[in-house]
Amino acid sequence: MTNKKEITAAIIIIGNEVLSGRTKDINTSTLAKWLNSLGIQVREVRVIPDLERIIVDTVNSLRNNFNYIFTTGGIGPTHDDITAESISKAFNLEYDFHKEAYSILEKYYKSGEFNQGRQKMAKMPTTAKLILNPTSGAPGFYIENVFCLPGVPSILQSMIGGLNNVLVGGDPILNITINLRTVESEIAKSITEIQNENKDVEIGSYPFFKAGKLGVSIVIRSSDKNKLDKCNSEILDLIKSKNIEIVEEV
Amino acid sequence: MTNKKEITAAIIIIGNEVLSGRTKDINTSTLAKWLNSLGIQVREVRVIPDLERIIVDTVNSLRNNFNYIFTTGGIGPTHDDITAESISKAFNLEYDFHKEAYSILEKYYKSGEFNQGRQKMAKMPTTAKLILNPTSGAPGFYIENVFCLPGVPSILQSMIGGLNNVLVGGDPILNITINLRTVESEIAKSITEIQNENKDVEIGSYPFFKAGKLGVSIVIRSSDKNKLDKCNSEILDLIKSKNIEIVEEV
Repeated sequence: MTNKKEITAAIIIIGNEVLSGRTKDINTSTLAKWLNSLGIQVREVRVIPDLERIIVDTVNSLRNNFNYIFTTGGIGPTHDDITAESISKAFNLEYDFHKEAYSILEKYYKSGEFNQGRQKMAKMPTTAKLILNPTSGAPGFYIENVFCLPGVPSILQSMIGGLNNVLVGGDPILNITINLRTVESEIAKSITEIQNENKDVEIGSYPFFKAGKLGVSIVIRSSDKNKLDKCNSEILDLIKSKNIEIVEEV
Repeated sequence: MTNKKEITAAIIIIGNEVLSGRTKDINTSTLAKWLNSLGIQVREVRVIPDLERIIVDTVNSLRNNFNYIFTTGGIGPTHDDITAESISKAFNLEYDFHKEAYSILEKYYKSGEFNQGRQKMAKMPTTAKLILNPTSGAPGFYIENVFCLPGVPSILQSMIGGLNNVLVGGDPILNITINLRTVESEIAKSITEIQNENKDVEIGSYPFFKAGKLGVSIVIRSSDKNKLDKCNSEILDLIKSKNIEIVEEV
């Protein structure tokens, strides 16, 4: 796939709770859809444990390979929240109270409730820029191209919109999904031929089972609308020639 | 965390559909819970695109660092299913029809229905061992410590039990979850002290919001039952001293 201007991202999910299977990660999907809408493509996701050495190494090994890095998790008040300190070490920056973050949290909590745990949420690289949190006060932050967000999905969702004017995207990725009442093997050969003829369009084929019935979703993606439309019309011709039913929702 | 015998795994989720945000990965959670029950701890997850070079590099960079590697996705009949061929390249093994897999699929499909797409699912490293598929015929496979499973969750779930006698686990990880009607910052300091006194137990703190109410799940994990029980009782003492309500389900 060659894009005129390709902007890429990686996501680092920090959390033992995902590695243990206790929590299913849904932040990747939220971030990927939002980034797609800005013309930024997620190229890799890593889920790693709450261990400083691993956080530092992962951030440093990825941050030069992608335009943007997003971390989720580990910025709360408890002992297992070590993302902010780890990011400070990755960038070799001072980890201490961030003046603006401290001020935000001091105002957010009632007098007498701004305790040690809550104060910890104001500690981060002192030169970080903040990502405001309209849900629960405690801000995220970013240093260069590394953006640190919380792990709680509803809070993360409420914060990302604040970055729309900070991130610089590329050509947005357009996509079309066609849901078919067929099985993959019936169309595999023809779709392969269409893929070979349409190198700048990414064609994905995903089987589904819904209400006891089998089907296949064909997803085509490209930043070039003309190429997407050409590929789409070739797939629609194939479907017609094979007399395959198109289904609306899966 | 020191275990008497620690057996580790990494999971590689192969699929553009997860990176685009279209599909939420639930196979990590399924695999992690199942592996935990066998005494195998998932240490890292990577989500990568359907690109041969990246699959080969990722498998080869991880397979010496963990006892087991599990891949999901990319073993179906379509053009974007390139896991089997990529694994063959990673191990420098011949990629061709696997006799036993071919025979299984030939019997599974009705005469005349074993078409080119379906035959492709019998192609893999010719020396691979098979992972039988009670749901839809097409087997997974493994080479050395790399186990390749399908991406469709229901099919993956039906196949993993067949590996229970193949995998060799370590000490199982025991865990206790305590759900509290409190907020993290109220207990952060005390839990930190308990964590510092209980180095062989991993204490996780996870805020939750349910039916409009805030709470915190404390999850403690260890392979040593005595250490787990000691830590649990210290946390229960803390809860009692702070007069915090325990809630049953979250």
